[in-house]
Parts: sequence; C-alpha cells; structure tokens
Amino acid sequence: MATTPTTFAVIPRPSLEDPLAHLPCSSILEYRSGQVIYNQDQPSTNIYLVIDGKVKVCRMAEDGRQIVVDIYQADEFFGESAFLNSATRDEQAVAIENTKVMTWTAAEIMDLAIKRPRLAVALLQILVQRATEFGQRIQSFSVDNIARRLARTLIRFSERLGQSHEDGSVEMMPFTHELLSQCVGTSREIVTHYMNQFRRQGYLRYSRKGIVLYRDAMKDWLRHQQSASA
Amino acid sequence: MATTPTTFAVIPRPSLEDPLAHLPCSSILEYRSGQVIYNQDQPSTNIYLVIDGKVKVCRMAEDGRQIVVDIYQADEFFGESAFLNSATRDEQAVAIENTKVMTWTAAEIMDLAIKRPRLAVALLQILVQRATEFGQRIQSFSVDNIARRLARTLIRFSERLGQSHEDGSVEMMPFTHELLSQCVGTSREIVTHYMNQFRRQGYLRYSRKGIVLYRDAMKDWLRHQQSASA
Repeated sequence: MATTPTTFAVIPRPSLEDPLAHLPCSSILEYRSGQVIYNQDQPSTNIYLVIDGKVKVCRMAEDGRQIVVDIYQADEFFGESAFLNSATRDEQAVAIENTKVMTWTAAEIMDLAIKRPRLAVALLQILVQRATEFGQRIQSFSVDNIARRLARTLIRFSERLGQSHEDGSVEMMPFTHELLSQCVGTSREIVTHYMNQFRRQGYLRYSRKGIVLYRDAMKDWLRHQQSASA
Repeated sequence: MATTPTTFAVIPRPSLEDPLAHLPCSSILEYRSGQVIYNQDQPSTNIYLVIDGKVKVCRMAEDGRQIVVDIYQADEFFGESAFLNSATRDEQAVAIENTKVMTWTAAEIMDLAIKRPRLAVALLQILVQRATEFGQRIQSFSVDNIARRLARTLIRFSERLGQSHEDGSVEMMPFTHELLSQCVGTSREIVTHYMNQFRRQGYLRYSRKGIVLYRDAMKDWLRHQQSASA
C-alpha cells in the first residue's frame, strides 16, 4: 500500500509501520468456506488477523440485505469495531475460502498498544487507509452509475486481491455476481448484465475458476466515459 | 460518542481515551467562513483540531462535484489522511463558519504517539468510529432511496452537531440544501423537494437561522417506511 513520497510534500510524511512486527503469536482458529466467524447474534470482542484464506465482512440492512464492507486476505486485520465501547451488532464476518485466523481480544491489543506504541501507530495507519478507501466508495456511490461502481469495485479488488500477469491482466478469485452485487448495492441480475457487457467488450474474462481483468483497459473505459459525459 | 457497555459482552471492551489529554498546545490558526484550509492544489501534511467553528471536508469527483465526507466541530480532528505516505490530492477542507484550528504535522503527532501511546490509542478509537460511520453511510447508499438517505443524514447531523431541546426537537445550523445534496449524492433541487415534503409532514422546520428536526418522528418515519416496503 505504501507508495513513494510525492515530491510536493515539503514536510516528510511518516513511514508505514508493520503491525505484524509488534504482535505476539496467538492461537490459530480454522473456518471452512461459508462458515460464520461472528455475526449480529454473536458479536465479536476480538480483533482478527487472516493467516490464510479470505474473509468477507458485511453489514446487514434492516430488510436482511447484505452490504459487503470488504474482503480480507492473509496479513490483513478485521473486526476493528471491537475497539469501540459499543458493539456493532449489524456486522458479520464469513470465511469465503477455507481460512485460518489468529485472534486477540480488543482489550489485549489495546494493552499491547500501550506497551508497544509502534503497534498502535501501525494500526492507526491501517485504519486511516481503510477510512480513505471508504471515502472513495462513498464518492463512487454519490456520483457513479452502477456500471461505473462495478468497474471501480473490480479495479479495487484487482489491486487488493489480484495477481498480475506480464500481459497486464490481473487474475482474481471467482467472485460471484451475488457478492459483486452486495459491493455495488444492486441486484445480482443487474451485475450479470454489466459483467456480460464488460466481457463482450473485452475488459474481462470469467469462469468458475476466476475472473481475469484487463485493468488498464477498464481504467481507460472509466476515464473515457467520464470525458464523454462531461 | 461513548455509550454504556452492552450487557452481552463477556469480555470487557476497552474504555475510550481522550486525545486532548495527551496533546501539547500548538499555535492557533483562524479561518473566515468560506475560506479553504487545504485542497487538492495545496494538499495537507497536517492534522487539525477544531477549537471553535465548523469545517466541511469534501472529496472532489473528476467532474468537479463535491462529496461531503463529514463536518467537524470543536474538539474534533480532521486531515487524518496526512498519516498516510501518499497525499490524497482529491480532498479539501473549508471553514463553514468563522473557525479556529490548532494544527500539528502528521510526523509530529506520530512522534508524540510513540512517546505517549495513549494518544495513539485515542486516535485509533476515533478512526475506528469514523470508519464505522462510513460503513453505515455505504450501507445507506446501497439500500436506501434518496429520501431515506436524506433522513439518515439529518438524523446523523442532529446527533453529531445538534442541540437537543426538552420537547425532543434538535436544533442544527442552517445547512444549505446544496450542502445536504453533497452529503446524499443528488442535486440541490431534489433535496429541496424532499425537505419541503418533510417540512409539510411536520418532521422538521427550517429557516435561515437553522434547521429544527423532530428526530424521534423522523426515526419513526424511517422504521415505518421500512416495514411498509418489506
């Protein structure tokens, strides 16, 4: 996530800390794909670190619809709402692959953070990064139509969770259209419509094995659409 | 923001730290209403604390539209993206009242946080709270129509920035319909339409001096609409 410092900043920005360097080992829990790690009936007081696999964190709307907050993979944390006094009962975390996590209570992490302030700084930077990404998504919801929201979601997942190939394509896990619809706030049918359109136009390929995104072309499409509508 | 601990959590949750208890004084800057504190042309490497007044933080879409991230008042921080290595050039902060802020470089705050880990923990909790609220807004954008988004924005502002009266009404500053439209991602005209509707239905009153929201009634409306559409 760290990029080289931009040249216009006169005052040096703080470097990124690695939280894993400051955490003691804890026991490892295993979850099968589809298994719930916590949900509104069993709210979590723990912070989790993904060791292996992938986890989907969702918010639950009053009508039962799921909204994907994000997907987390190895070396990423989730469950940070346990740091607050009030439980967030409307969140759930589900393994979407066979997954191993390490876990600590929020109180343990806070105690550790007081003793090892670099851990606190590292977690702070992760949270700022996360809040920044949420801000970008709020922006996308505010100004983008569904096709553009879907394109941005695919680009973001390819940057966070994809494997780049030499030809510029990026391979990702086989996100279902259902899951993508929970990311962009629409129905599965509408996602399928636009995924077909993107496929026909050559921006991506998909199968049961995965999604291959031609990311630069997809970014060009976003830019071109922008100038066309401006 | 702290609420009493919920009873179902067996493991005690960490208590909330106050960052102001751990920060040294810094010089105070003054901005007139409407004045830019930082923007994409002058990106900030600083963290700001509002001493007096109010500040609007926006993201700027490619087509120039503004999206309100949030409004900050006395004792609240903004500018936290300075904690990241990469400058976020698409953010701007503007005083929306005559405003006084105290400011430190992000590097200074990070140095302080290493020396005073309770400051780091306090900032961490603020960021978790902020990320949680952003998650709630992403949920609202995903599942709510514009009237419901507007109602939730008014309720959130009344909880964050309002003054409660004995009759259950909450008085807020005179948010313009333009500003509200930048919060819910629609046009000023559509906000005016729904604000008139809410006013006719008795959920709020507004004038140049301020907005008075009947918050419990507005919440009932949200709930009633929900069960009506379920």
